[in-house]
Amino acid sequence: MTAAPIVLLSHPMLSPMRPALEAQGWAVAERWAMTPEASAAARAIVHAGEVPLPTDFLENLPKLGLIACVSVGYDGVDVPAARARGIEVTHARGLNAEDVADHALGLVLASWRNIVLGDEVVRQGRWRDDDRMGPRPGLRGRRLGVVGLGAIGEAVARRAEAFGLEVAWWGPRAKPDAAWPRAESLLALAQASDILVVACRADASNRGLIDAGVIEAVGPRGLIVNVARGSVVDEEALIAALKDGRLGRAALDVFAQEPTPADRWADVPNTVLTPHTAGGTVDSIPRMVAQAIENVRLFLAGEPVASPAP
Amino acid sequence: MTAAPIVLLSHPMLSPMRPALEAQGWAVAERWAMTPEASAAARAIVHAGEVPLPTDFLENLPKLGLIACVSVGYDGVDVPAARARGIEVTHARGLNAEDVADHALGLVLASWRNIVLGDEVVRQGRWRDDDRMGPRPGLRGRRLGVVGLGAIGEAVARRAEAFGLEVAWWGPRAKPDAAWPRAESLLALAQASDILVVACRADASNRGLIDAGVIEAVGPRGLIVNVARGSVVDEEALIAALKDGRLGRAALDVFAQEPTPADRWADVPNTVLTPHTAGGTVDSIPRMVAQAIENVRLFLAGEPVASPAP
Repeated sequence: MTAAPIVLLSHPMLSPMRPALEAQGWAVAERWAMTPEASAAARAIVHAGEVPLPTDFLENLPKLGLIACVSVGYDGVDVPAARARGIEVTHARGLNAEDVADHALGLVLASWRNIVLGDEVVRQGRWRDDDRMGPRPGLRGRRLGVVGLGAIGEAVARRAEAFGLEVAWWGPRAKPDAAWPRAESLLALAQASDILVVACRADASNRGLIDAGVIEAVGPRGLIVNVARGSVVDEEALIAALKDGRLGRAALDVFAQEPTPADRWADVPNTVLTPHTAGGTVDSIPRMVAQAIENVRLFLAGEPVASPAP
Repeated sequence: MTAAPIVLLSHPMLSPMRPALEAQGWAVAERWAMTPEASAAARAIVHAGEVPLPTDFLENLPKLGLIACVSVGYDGVDVPAARARGIEVTHARGLNAEDVADHALGLVLASWRNIVLGDEVVRQGRWRDDDRMGPRPGLRGRRLGVVGLGAIGEAVARRAEAFGLEVAWWGPRAKPDAAWPRAESLLALAQASDILVVACRADASNRGLIDAGVIEAVGPRGLIVNVARGSVVDEEALIAALKDGRLGRAALDVFAQEPTPADRWADVPNTVLTPHTAGGTVDSIPRMVAQAIENVRLFLAGEPVASPAP
């Protein structure tokens, strides 16, 4: 009988997966409590793709062949560098698109229609004397731009249409079958949008894609929603634009650093902030966990993995 | 030249309408600062329909012939009693249905997906240690019941379908052309709904329609959203059910008393509260104001009004 293959968990927030991994007959080790024996023998690591996984950490894992991200996205992993070392990277491609799109529309509405602010105003007894609570524009006929028309972007666009929003999108690759018009450029999309929803993949190629120019193009009456990854938005530029009114509003589920420090947002007006909860529901999490486990199983069996990072 | 007809404003929050009324050549008087001359001569009152307008107040207005509600709804007015005195009642029927439906979905998402709570958690620096922030169910495949399939209810149902929710409805009258199934009863709808959205008209016939039995039928995992009027929900029963867990969540834009006292909600868990902002946007308010002015103009000209209360 051979020893059980060693599978690493990369972060304490993944600890609830331990029983499911052990049920596969694998030995589970923890990255945050590694023994030399585990480092020497680990075959795969189960990872939360948004958490940075340094390349020098991988150098101490000579038998590692797979980074299986439970998440949709793998922005904490240097995929080319991993593959150069013979390590495959997988993620939960598309498995939570509907949930992320729901949350994105929730952020649109919570910000645009002053729902978070209104809740604060009612609870503070300022129902009729808060000068931030003047009437808001409606949604019908206003323009929503989607950055990245993948599974999430399409699910956002379908929902936005039900609200009478005019939808356009931009992404680096043309999509002849897309149901909505593609803008000439990201900047053109931002200029033509009242609401810009960032829903693209995140990797080394698009860090800071939503830069000061794009932010100012959305403008003083506009709203930027980010359900992609914090790295896609220049967060310093976003904060500066909100503070001096060059951008109207922002609603963010993802941040440059997670958890984002509370004091970073204390004096930034017109924001709605959620703790990276868009994609993780009781429906999607079991699907994402099962996908990661299946990828580890396929890899250990010497078969092609099911959902490699692009 | 005859004297300008006297038109009353019923509430200080309607004061911004004064210039538009005066531009019609009417003399504007204020209900909260009435002179005997204005009482004796007033022909019409411009009213916010949700504010109680006592019958004994109308008894002091011998020339009054019209109550023109700027609002959609007229629940503060005893319509049969007014008509028995020869006073017509109008409102802004249907003019803000899209905005109210947007807000209703915003309340659904803000509550169901913990957006208001998440914002609080991020700002308080409790990103990873708030035990209320466990994963939530997604929306797809869950059941949303609409109480009242009027213009607002239909607009809610259309949006809900885009989120993959299964829609049903109940109202006192069958609608053979409705696109969604009508439940056998309100109680049956509540029992079959994860989310119940109250979107019906409010009048003397349906005070407390959403009673303890309906609330408990929605149940410990369910959500009740009210964008109709506070009078339609038994608010004491709702609060009691939230406190002891017989109802999961509530998201309310309307209240038994408005403004609702802040301390009424201080120890009521799992609520999202907005200050009756669903229907008033920069798009809808001018339409509603214009409709009220048009109704006053028609009445003073001896013509049939455009949008009488049913």
